[in-house]
Amino acid sequence: MNAFEARRKKLAATLGPRGLALALFEDTEGRRDPSIRYFTGHPMDALLFITADGRSLLVPWDVNMAASMASVDRVIAYTDYQRSPYKAMAGALAELGIQAGSKVDLPSITPYPMYIKYVEENPEYDFECAEDSSRETAIGMRAVKDADELAIYRTVSSITDTVMDRIEKGVREGSLKTETDVGLFIERALREQGCEGVGFESIIAGPSRSFGIHAFPSYTAAPFASEGMSILDFGLVYKGYTSDVTMTFVRGEPTAQRKEMISLVQKAHDEAVALCAPGVKSRDVALRVDQIFSEKGYVMPHGLGHGVGLEAHEMPAVRSREDNAWVLAPGHIITIEPGLYDPKAGGVRLENDVLITETGHEVLTHSRIVQL
Amino acid sequence: MNAFEARRKKLAATLGPRGLALALFEDTEGRRDPSIRYFTGHPMDALLFITADGRSLLVPWDVNMAASMASVDRVIAYTDYQRSPYKAMAGALAELGIQAGSKVDLPSITPYPMYIKYVEENPEYDFECAEDSSRETAIGMRAVKDADELAIYRTVSSITDTVMDRIEKGVREGSLKTETDVGLFIERALREQGCEGVGFESIIAGPSRSFGIHAFPSYTAAPFASEGMSILDFGLVYKGYTSDVTMTFVRGEPTAQRKEMISLVQKAHDEAVALCAPGVKSRDVALRVDQIFSEKGYVMPHGLGHGVGLEAHEMPAVRSREDNAWVLAPGHIITIEPGLYDPKAGGVRLENDVLITETGHEVLTHSRIVQL
Repeated sequence: MNAFEARRKKLAATLGPRGLALALFEDTEGRRDPSIRYFTGHPMDALLFITADGRSLLVPWDVNMAASMASVDRVIAYTDYQRSPYKAMAGALAELGIQAGSKVDLPSITPYPMYIKYVEENPEYDFECAEDSSRETAIGMRAVKDADELAIYRTVSSITDTVMDRIEKGVREGSLKTETDVGLFIERALREQGCEGVGFESIIAGPSRSFGIHAFPSYTAAPFASEGMSILDFGLVYKGYTSDVTMTFVRGEPTAQRKEMISLVQKAHDEAVALCAPGVKSRDVALRVDQIFSEKGYVMPHGLGHGVGLEAHEMPAVRSREDNAWVLAPGHIITIEPGLYDPKAGGVRLENDVLITETGHEVLTHSRIVQL
Repeated sequence: MNAFEARRKKLAATLGPRGLALALFEDTEGRRDPSIRYFTGHPMDALLFITADGRSLLVPWDVNMAASMASVDRVIAYTDYQRSPYKAMAGALAELGIQAGSKVDLPSITPYPMYIKYVEENPEYDFECAEDSSRETAIGMRAVKDADELAIYRTVSSITDTVMDRIEKGVREGSLKTETDVGLFIERALREQGCEGVGFESIIAGPSRSFGIHAFPSYTAAPFASEGMSILDFGLVYKGYTSDVTMTFVRGEPTAQRKEMISLVQKAHDEAVALCAPGVKSRDVALRVDQIFSEKGYVMPHGLGHGVGLEAHEMPAVRSREDNAWVLAPGHIITIEPGLYDPKAGGVRLENDVLITETGHEVLTHSRIVQL
């Protein structure tokens, strides 16, 4: 049994106890769900049906891609269903021999009008669309990395460290002068190292733009790492899995305000990382950072971190919002990324990827605030 | 009145006749909607409320970004609502003085469980979530470009042509040898020309990968434009608006099969473009292309084209599916992109952006199949 099949069996085993005969996964332009890659290896644009007894049917947009990348019981082209999700559902119910009256699980993000159509076009089945759909079961499974995934993270973290080192060198030596220089350096370096691409648009903000949490456009022809504070936030994707790190470059003697912001962010990062261990509520880690900042009159305008994996933002949540009930567990890989931003002084953020281990944690990446 | 306000007034005027007091727009990580940019200039991550009497409230994730980019009546930070869409909705209903019992429009893509929560947490209001929500009204408005948008398309089309010319030159001269060479050339060139980024991941597939409709990964270290057929599909974003073109590079004397595929795609492209005019059903254009291919035993595994704008894929639809009822009209900008793919021979696709005018059409970009 390969890793994909093992994951499908594990998902399938959750269906029976919930009274479900079939679960639908959907990965389309408007509703991306890399769980289809997690369960089959097929990287994009498909529907996936998994039955309670562990059988699977993939309905891909591109059958050539499925032939070369998918590991799944059966493949039927989406064009065979006139590219209609409702026809594909009707076809899958028939192909898989799902009895009338059975309960079918739809992804929690299914739009309300689509839900109504699934129901109307397949009146003999009982469709469920809840916040705890199989989509969430899969997201929960993905939060805890298995051995195959941990091996991939060893590699992507190491590549990310290498690229950060080379960027620091390039900035110090003067070969990387603009946001674009850094952005394209990353794009070339990652491909040389066998990565697929970036995990998200690289955010490369020189001193004039670093005040934004998420600079827009993500990088421009503007100077990078010139006088003041510059932020570089990027992730590399290796075999589908993304890293996510943020460096800050500080050029020149920082003003008193900048000095305070930098030291608070470093302190928040170090204390947060130190707290990471199995059994710890991730909310408590985030609350500690909120406290460090609020004691000095600062507010962080975003969450402290998040899980990483096939998506840049995965479970577990790492934020101080009341609804965050996550308890850290071995196999979680999360980011810790405190940041402070000021419209005039600019921004500073420091982010690393942290693996929760049986006994505590291991910092997988080695980002830093660089003083030039 | 600036263009943003004019667009908001136009949207607001559609609410009263439908009995709606308020419309919600949502642009978040899972549910992108550039209509918020269309209505306010704010580029990402926000909720936008528009009342039937034309008032507007933006709830952005990043208030610094809103301060510099948004043109809107009022701004309240999402953090003021503890980053909860339900609390933001309750707050907006109060701030905007919407009377209890009023009808509130939710985006059509609101997940079924979120719809239920909006209803439960604001029981005094009547929430509607239909396939023809204000989100679709906005998408319909965006399908017909206004004067400001047409001016932007003149610029982005011209930049795209220049970049295509430079790529052809680089390929012919041997300075662009790999998929990565071409990808990074595009990334640098577009920023030199004042563009924001790419409209979608550039698809750059050398002969070994061009059989895929949408090569994955989108570009690699593999050779480009070597012996056989290579596909380059990219778009540039200028002031938010994207172009979308595909070139095919053919190196060496094509086999009989490749020759037939190339000539069919060129013929399909030329005939489809020639049919483009106001009053023509876009489905009929697509059906003509299906016919050209099927007469020779080929099937195109994707739609013929699509509108472009703030998103790479916009309205009007340009495909042969029965549910496509679009009639071309002046101001529409669509792609025409016939393609054929074979696991062994590789793929060929030709794509240009076509503006529908009062009297017919104008081809905005000048892509081509290049024989090397």
